Amino acid sequence: MLEYSEPVSRLIDEFKRLPGIGHKSAQRLAFHVLRLPEERVEDFVSALREVKQKIVFCTVCNNLTDIDPCTFCSSPTRDRSLVCVVEEPYNLVAVEKTRSYKGLYHILHGSLSPIRGVGPDELMLANLFPRLSAENNDGVEVTEVIVATNPTTEGEATANYVARLIKPLGVKVTRIAMGMPVGSDLEFVDEVTMDKALANRHEI
Amino acid sequence: MLEYSEPVSRLIDEFKRLPGIGHKSAQRLAFHVLRLPEERVEDFVSALREVKQKIVFCTVCNNLTDIDPCTFCSSPTRDRSLVCVVEEPYNLVAVEKTRSYKGLYHILHGSLSPIRGVGPDELMLANLFPRLSAENNDGVEVTEVIVATNPTTEGEATANYVARLIKPLGVKVTRIAMGMPVGSDLEFVDEVTMDKALANRHEI
Repeated sequence: MLEYSEPVSRLIDEFKRLPGIGHKSAQRLAFHVLRLPEERVEDFVSALREVKQKIVFCTVCNNLTDIDPCTFCSSPTRDRSLVCVVEEPYNLVAVEKTRSYKGLYHILHGSLSPIRGVGPDELMLANLFPRLSAENNDGVEVTEVIVATNPTTEGEATANYVARLIKPLGVKVTRIAMGMPVGSDLEFVDEVTMDKALANRHEI
Repeated sequence: MLEYSEPVSRLIDEFKRLPGIGHKSAQRLAFHVLRLPEERVEDFVSALREVKQKIVFCTVCNNLTDIDPCTFCSSPTRDRSLVCVVEEPYNLVAVEKTRSYKGLYHILHGSLSPIRGVGPDELMLANLFPRLSAENNDGVEVTEVIVATNPTTEGEATANYVARLIKPLGVKVTRIAMGMPVGSDLEFVDEVTMDKALANRHEI
């Protein structure tokens, strides 16, 4: 006997297609939806549709935005001589939260991962190079590209790849530091992080 | 500066309202939706709407169904003398998966939890009592009610509450066994489960 009626199974399947949602979570979410008032489901539906209708890639930095160029690229107060390269739009948010970075961004929408079939052509990197010269950047020469891809194998490979392409253009390329997270404990840190923390030590 | 444009923030908020989805997961899901082809989003939208349009509570057992009474309640092959009481529709699936239970179900849609403000009136219990007599059950008297609420404080309280109401009607009420999960290891079992496993020991 089929345990769920067809519409319920279908909704469970739709939730399962979302990243990080397994069968049990999908079931739970579907039953949550079943108990929601109809207006709430319509709010959800319209939010889903609206992003597809209104959100585009910023032609300058590839950020997801409802105005092109995005608010970062068109802001008169940001430092146009700095470009921070990140993998995903939500990585940009992590950098913004520091409130210390005031430059521009470039979003790759991924990282090099041969195992997942992501090669250089899948990254949104081509439009980074024209940005670096003054004539394409409101008259400001880019002096430094900060590569803030993740401290993972994929992120490191991507950082090295980006650096290899940018350095010949005479622009400084830097990589965010790796080491002990602030507030952590040496007792629980993994050996690779500890190794980085030792290698990147600095005089006090 | 607002990090996300309004439609993206709104979709993130909608995902955050779902149970078990925190801010980071909501971000990830929203960006996943942004990258989906429009048809896929429409499939999701129609699955969401369809459950709201087609799915109702079974008037007999409270199961979520697109036909009323549900396939269990209207099945001629199920044993109508047995009713298994569960908290949620997905708990029914766990019982069905055993393939050994052939009786009917009754879904409470919750468990007693004073801390979450769920009292007896919030449970869908009232329609259980008329089911127990033969005239309301296709001429078959219910002889046993199996209470398969979760082995938690709330589930136990609910089981005791249900039993206290049904026993005076002269119907046998049973509770599913608690003990060591099959395939587990005594080394890792918690003391409450171990205590139950000892208390419920049986001769071999």
